[in-house]
Amino acid sequence: MKVIVAPDSFKGSVSAMGAAKAIEKGIKQYLPEAETVLIPVADGGEGTMDSLVAATGGKKVELEVTGPLGDPVRAAYGQLGDGRTCVIEMADASGLYLIPPERRDPMKATTFGTGQLIKAALDAGCREFILAVGGSATNDGGSGMLQALGMKLLTKDGHEVGFGGGELDQIATIDDREFDGRITDSTFLLACDVQNPLIGPTGASHIFGPQKGATPEMVEILDKKLSHWADLVEAQTGIALHNKAGAGAAGGIGGAFQAFFSAEMRRGIDIVIEYTGLEEALAGADVVITGEGQIDYQTASGKTPMGVAQAAQKHGIPTVAFAGSIGKGIEELYQYGIQSVHSIVNGPMSLADAMNKAEQLLQQKAEQVIRTMYLNQ
Amino acid sequence: MKVIVAPDSFKGSVSAMGAAKAIEKGIKQYLPEAETVLIPVADGGEGTMDSLVAATGGKKVELEVTGPLGDPVRAAYGQLGDGRTCVIEMADASGLYLIPPERRDPMKATTFGTGQLIKAALDAGCREFILAVGGSATNDGGSGMLQALGMKLLTKDGHEVGFGGGELDQIATIDDREFDGRITDSTFLLACDVQNPLIGPTGASHIFGPQKGATPEMVEILDKKLSHWADLVEAQTGIALHNKAGAGAAGGIGGAFQAFFSAEMRRGIDIVIEYTGLEEALAGADVVITGEGQIDYQTASGKTPMGVAQAAQKHGIPTVAFAGSIGKGIEELYQYGIQSVHSIVNGPMSLADAMNKAEQLLQQKAEQVIRTMYLNQ
Repeated sequence: MKVIVAPDSFKGSVSAMGAAKAIEKGIKQYLPEAETVLIPVADGGEGTMDSLVAATGGKKVELEVTGPLGDPVRAAYGQLGDGRTCVIEMADASGLYLIPPERRDPMKATTFGTGQLIKAALDAGCREFILAVGGSATNDGGSGMLQALGMKLLTKDGHEVGFGGGELDQIATIDDREFDGRITDSTFLLACDVQNPLIGPTGASHIFGPQKGATPEMVEILDKKLSHWADLVEAQTGIALHNKAGAGAAGGIGGAFQAFFSAEMRRGIDIVIEYTGLEEALAGADVVITGEGQIDYQTASGKTPMGVAQAAQKHGIPTVAFAGSIGKGIEELYQYGIQSVHSIVNGPMSLADAMNKAEQLLQQKAEQVIRTMYLNQ
Repeated sequence: MKVIVAPDSFKGSVSAMGAAKAIEKGIKQYLPEAETVLIPVADGGEGTMDSLVAATGGKKVELEVTGPLGDPVRAAYGQLGDGRTCVIEMADASGLYLIPPERRDPMKATTFGTGQLIKAALDAGCREFILAVGGSATNDGGSGMLQALGMKLLTKDGHEVGFGGGELDQIATIDDREFDGRITDSTFLLACDVQNPLIGPTGASHIFGPQKGATPEMVEILDKKLSHWADLVEAQTGIALHNKAGAGAAGGIGGAFQAFFSAEMRRGIDIVIEYTGLEEALAGADVVITGEGQIDYQTASGKTPMGVAQAAQKHGIPTVAFAGSIGKGIEELYQYGIQSVHSIVNGPMSLADAMNKAEQLLQQKAEQVIRTMYLNQ
């Protein structure tokens, strides 16, 4: 019996690795001789760096960078086991979670810190980058990141512009003469599930601005400023980001990558599955156990359990999914190879109780599910 | 695929038949062609009559009888499909649940109504009786039941004594001349899980008196009065109930059956399993699904899921158990053939929520467990 244990974190409760270990314990309770392979997984959101670092035997490197509102923050990049690949969660340096709700302001928030993380990783020898771009506080078109990497964004008076989406219309010239030359030798893989363009009603400002603190008036202003920026970028590079799919990701940083980097965008879960080596581990497996805090119809849009199940399905291996809570529409998931879904909760209890006991509940549920699989054996 | 669906009720939430139907729905969701046999089960407690009536295609007959404190109550006996066997839940006529806590009084409570049910069933032609004796409000040694069946219990002045354990020491003579002659032609099977004697520190008064409303002083008095009753019975029948195992069941009604009836005591779940035909239904089954509101280490002492699993185990068929709530010590159950235990709850929720949604949750859980069984098929 070979079981691949590939859960996401159960958010706010147990990390993906903690969940994997608890599930393994439950399996071994009934089948001490079972072969278990633990692959903590993430879907390109929080936990992506930890998952890839753990899976490849890499390391995390922490440093001080400029936070979204200019204050210093501690952030990390992950250097994978190959020494050449770097994984960055943009939210770590430029994330919304770093700013209390009342101070959130996409007019001012900058991606500068994300650029600093890239620079530090370049210094460490990395030339392949994986960027998880979810959870950003920014709407600056990636301008801050470019500045951190040596790009001069100058006003018509020749001064460097300040930080944030509010400054973009002050830029008259993009001067790339000091742009970090190592970028040319590097490839960038963006873990990105959104296809939004940079500008317009489905663009970065309109769709993602409000959750970053933009008022309705601010949304209009941000969209205009981003449009000016897109005009400049097009004049400079020939690439029109305005309506380009994915350019609106993470406040327009998607567009900056498309224009100035050798970049590719892929669904987060697919990148994680590739770099964790999940597919290779699947050879000879009997079953895959995955899981996440909540499983429902939305899981079908690229969340971890669905991505893991799809990978397993390619190899004809069934997947069982564990959830803290099962919501509506789980029958949507069967087509992707999820054979069954089980809540780990073992009776009526509060959310707080379930979160406190998550590891114990995961262990018990794993044991019961393995026992159920062995019904007629 | 043949599945035997044999749950108990989920108390306060869904009947055993309701649970069985919900589980069947879930199974058929995934396997429309599955053969399902629904056998609602009980363990000799509440639901025993319903289970046996349903399993044999019998009927319930309701009538007015004397309640535990002398007030009239509506109660029923079940006439099984064979027309000859009657099942009675003593609690229906003489139950603690019929009396509000502040009025409970084992000095006064009588088993007269239970005797009336027997009499009515005799009138209807029944000669085989199954008595579920749990939940009684009484400590009268079964004297009330005997009175209802024609036994004269006379004071030394030749008057009939009143109802309840408090009157037992007034009895001077047991006159059986008008005791219902049909009793001699009848057999009585008592569904009884207790082995307590009639008298003494492990007797009816000390062990069960307090939960029926007896104060510590009252317990001593009741024990003495029962002892007087046992002396009389011994003088009359030669049978000493004082230390006889099982004589203390249900306030001493167990002893009355042992002395005046052709009676046998068996574990409730075993009787239910025999009369529902569960064992015959097991032929060719692939799996049994059982369940109860709460499953924990106590389930191992004769509760429905354990009894059902033991029966299935004899035929080499695995059992999966569903619970509203899983408590401690479920590993105790594996030795009896329970292969796995699953809570039906699908996320953190209140007990009230879980009870309201029990049927829906049972259906979902049944589908997921059947899907899990089919993992590698």
